Amino acid sequence: MSHTVDNAVSAVRTYIEHHRAAFLDDLAEWLRIPSVSAQPAHATDVRRSADWLAAKLKETGFPTAEVWPTAGAPAVFAEWPSGDAAAPTVLVYGHHDVQPAAREDGWHSDPFEPVVRDNRLYARGAADDKGQVFFHTLGVRAHLAATGRTAPAVNLKLLIEGEEESGSPHFRALAEEHAGRLAADAVIVSDTGMWSEDTPTVCTGMRGLAECEIRLHGPDQDIHSGSFGGAVPNPATAAARLVAALHDDHARVAIPGFYDGVIELTERERDLFAELPFDEHQWLRTAKSYAAHGEAGHTTLERIWARPTAEVNGIGGGYQGPGSKTIIPSSAMVKLSFRLVAGQDPGHVEKAVRAWAAEQVPAGIRCEITFGPATRPCLTPLDHPALQSVARAMGRAFGKPVRFTREGGSGPAADLQEVLGAPVLFLGISVPSDGWHAPDEKVELDLLLKGVETSAHLWGDLAEHWRHAP
Amino acid sequence: MSHTVDNAVSAVRTYIEHHRAAFLDDLAEWLRIPSVSAQPAHATDVRRSADWLAAKLKETGFPTAEVWPTAGAPAVFAEWPSGDAAAPTVLVYGHHDVQPAAREDGWHSDPFEPVVRDNRLYARGAADDKGQVFFHTLGVRAHLAATGRTAPAVNLKLLIEGEEESGSPHFRALAEEHAGRLAADAVIVSDTGMWSEDTPTVCTGMRGLAECEIRLHGPDQDIHSGSFGGAVPNPATAAARLVAALHDDHARVAIPGFYDGVIELTERERDLFAELPFDEHQWLRTAKSYAAHGEAGHTTLERIWARPTAEVNGIGGGYQGPGSKTIIPSSAMVKLSFRLVAGQDPGHVEKAVRAWAAEQVPAGIRCEITFGPATRPCLTPLDHPALQSVARAMGRAFGKPVRFTREGGSGPAADLQEVLGAPVLFLGISVPSDGWHAPDEKVELDLLLKGVETSAHLWGDLAEHWRHAP
Repeated sequence: MSHTVDNAVSAVRTYIEHHRAAFLDDLAEWLRIPSVSAQPAHATDVRRSADWLAAKLKETGFPTAEVWPTAGAPAVFAEWPSGDAAAPTVLVYGHHDVQPAAREDGWHSDPFEPVVRDNRLYARGAADDKGQVFFHTLGVRAHLAATGRTAPAVNLKLLIEGEEESGSPHFRALAEEHAGRLAADAVIVSDTGMWSEDTPTVCTGMRGLAECEIRLHGPDQDIHSGSFGGAVPNPATAAARLVAALHDDHARVAIPGFYDGVIELTERERDLFAELPFDEHQWLRTAKSYAAHGEAGHTTLERIWARPTAEVNGIGGGYQGPGSKTIIPSSAMVKLSFRLVAGQDPGHVEKAVRAWAAEQVPAGIRCEITFGPATRPCLTPLDHPALQSVARAMGRAFGKPVRFTREGGSGPAADLQEVLGAPVLFLGISVPSDGWHAPDEKVELDLLLKGVETSAHLWGDLAEHWRHAP
Repeated sequence: MSHTVDNAVSAVRTYIEHHRAAFLDDLAEWLRIPSVSAQPAHATDVRRSADWLAAKLKETGFPTAEVWPTAGAPAVFAEWPSGDAAAPTVLVYGHHDVQPAAREDGWHSDPFEPVVRDNRLYARGAADDKGQVFFHTLGVRAHLAATGRTAPAVNLKLLIEGEEESGSPHFRALAEEHAGRLAADAVIVSDTGMWSEDTPTVCTGMRGLAECEIRLHGPDQDIHSGSFGGAVPNPATAAARLVAALHDDHARVAIPGFYDGVIELTERERDLFAELPFDEHQWLRTAKSYAAHGEAGHTTLERIWARPTAEVNGIGGGYQGPGSKTIIPSSAMVKLSFRLVAGQDPGHVEKAVRAWAAEQVPAGIRCEITFGPATRPCLTPLDHPALQSVARAMGRAFGKPVRFTREGGSGPAADLQEVLGAPVLFLGISVPSDGWHAPDEKVELDLLLKGVETSAHLWGDLAEHWRHAP
């Protein structure tokens, strides 16, 4: 580490040390607002949370901080221009709503009365996502203090939504409505985690998602399996055969055209995944599963992060009660979800699934397919300058090399990527033990402050390495 | 037709003509008793029906007619020895309970107030099964009158159960308890139908039935398809693959050992099936289905009557509600039923299914199989002397050749076959339009009286052609 960098690290740390008590007091105040978006009884609290945040961002120095209404819960938007015409524009995404929580679910303290035990801050939202939104406030102040600037080195924007825990039903519309003001060169999502306390990582992409329900109609009503069994097609059999045909013997998805456009992992990416201290036994315990199983030729991490999948989320048909009923059911249903990776187009996948299903279903069975709205995959290449900046900033904060992961799930950040046409990067300091959506959610205070440090280093690094051409 | 036979036919017809009014009055009286075994409110009526029948059988001339209690509804047993040591013993099986029925289900008259319209007798139980039990009463009287005998030419026994419409839960126990008194050389089931008004047929066998539920357990709870999808085995996929593996590409059951022992159709039997005036379009309308589909190399009639099947009666797992849920379900379930044909052993089939399932299920999925009680198949060879007698008796009554069918369903008669070690024959005069279990159930009066005639001819023919060795 160079002397200059060393000085910057010290300056940031000193600033944070002086302000951590006030920062934590503020965060605790925010965490006391039970902004549970899924529970109508908390609608006022969600609005109060948005107001609180907008006010706090103004106090932090953002010249603009607004509460944006939606058809549901409000979002908060803030903007702090750098004043430098060549500086890149960065939009930070997070959310201020939280999952439901009640003491009787198994919490050891009131979920909405934050408490520090063993250097961990326990409260609903501590990690998901108030803590990770909030580290940017002290981060940007430390950035200014350490660099002597009066405005951030980048044009900094924040969009903190209020319905993420309810499936972001109005987020896409919000992003489209405000696309002009949200315009950015990169989106930084602070709503994820890192590998572990000891292994800081940057996530480089998320899988997309396409979902459908397939209904198979056979006889006009349930018919007697003695009188007709063995002589007419059974829609439950057709449903099962459809699901069975999803994968070949190598657990590859067998739908023709499904893999079209898939960006394959490079050797370097595979090596980087392989370097992570992955313990499959431990992972299986987390998955509450009894075997690893997936596409041949790929490791478990590759399968969940970088390979598209077809999963059956639900299947049903005929008699499911106790005992038996000797019928050929009239209909059956399967719910499928496809996780998509970069290069796959949800529209193309939908077409491929429809064509394949039509091909599979036997004569005498009518097939009806409904697709819901899809989420696109997102992936930022390892050599993207913004990704390099995030990794360097995090490396400075943690004092150790940063590794790269991906996320197997899918999220609304992909909407920002699509609406704004900007790459999405993931900066999170949460760890798997933080208990997202579970009782005793917490954030590690040391890691939270590393988040502050990372944020403090990031804006200068970005402005330095990713300037707009004059 | 010989002169003697001609005389016998005339004598029987004359007797029936003289007694038909009283016979129909008696039947109507019985039909007025709403002996609905499935409805506890009618328990007294079921008992009343048994008492009524026992009294009527005594009046008919049976020296013994008893009501046999069970743990549920009572059965009726009657016996009339022939007095001839070489005569065979025949046990007639039927039931005196009926399906539920209410005017508002769509009946054009009160289901328990019999009425004749267009030479059809409308009432619940007219065809299923009181009418078909009752034709034996006038039948045996006509037999005596036409032959001048004072006792039937065979040792005649009747067992008329009271719980057939409730799944015969206590029938096996009843048969075992009274196996000695029920002992017979052949069982004649009068609880079936014939091909059509114009095509009298004798049914020569029923398929058996083995049923199981297979539960497949994957993760200990539903897990996130984004975090884990594509990397652990999905029990709903395993369930689907199991069902898909039930059949090969020729729709043959693919479970090793499943067909062990199956008695294949002879060329003669296939020819006899093919001679029946079968209209596949009409059959598909009855099946409310849109295609015929089944084991390659067999016709539809062969498939439903003489080939074993594997059908999925129910399948379920994961999320089946509206919308989507991105989970890998914790478990899935399939309910399978196997129709069995002569030569198959339910115990052997169970073993084969268990071994096959264990083979199919992937690592990480736990498989639990529960089999319910099985019903054995029954089949009487075409050249069996009792079957020949039934066909001749029916031919005499109808004045035309009798053809042969089988029944795809499974019934408690198989218990009699097993407990008594006697072949089962099926003598029924009901036709598909009779509306079993439906509103406006009826019996064609002409066919009902052909049933009386058949019964009247049968006992003498049996005694003549199937005498015990002295």
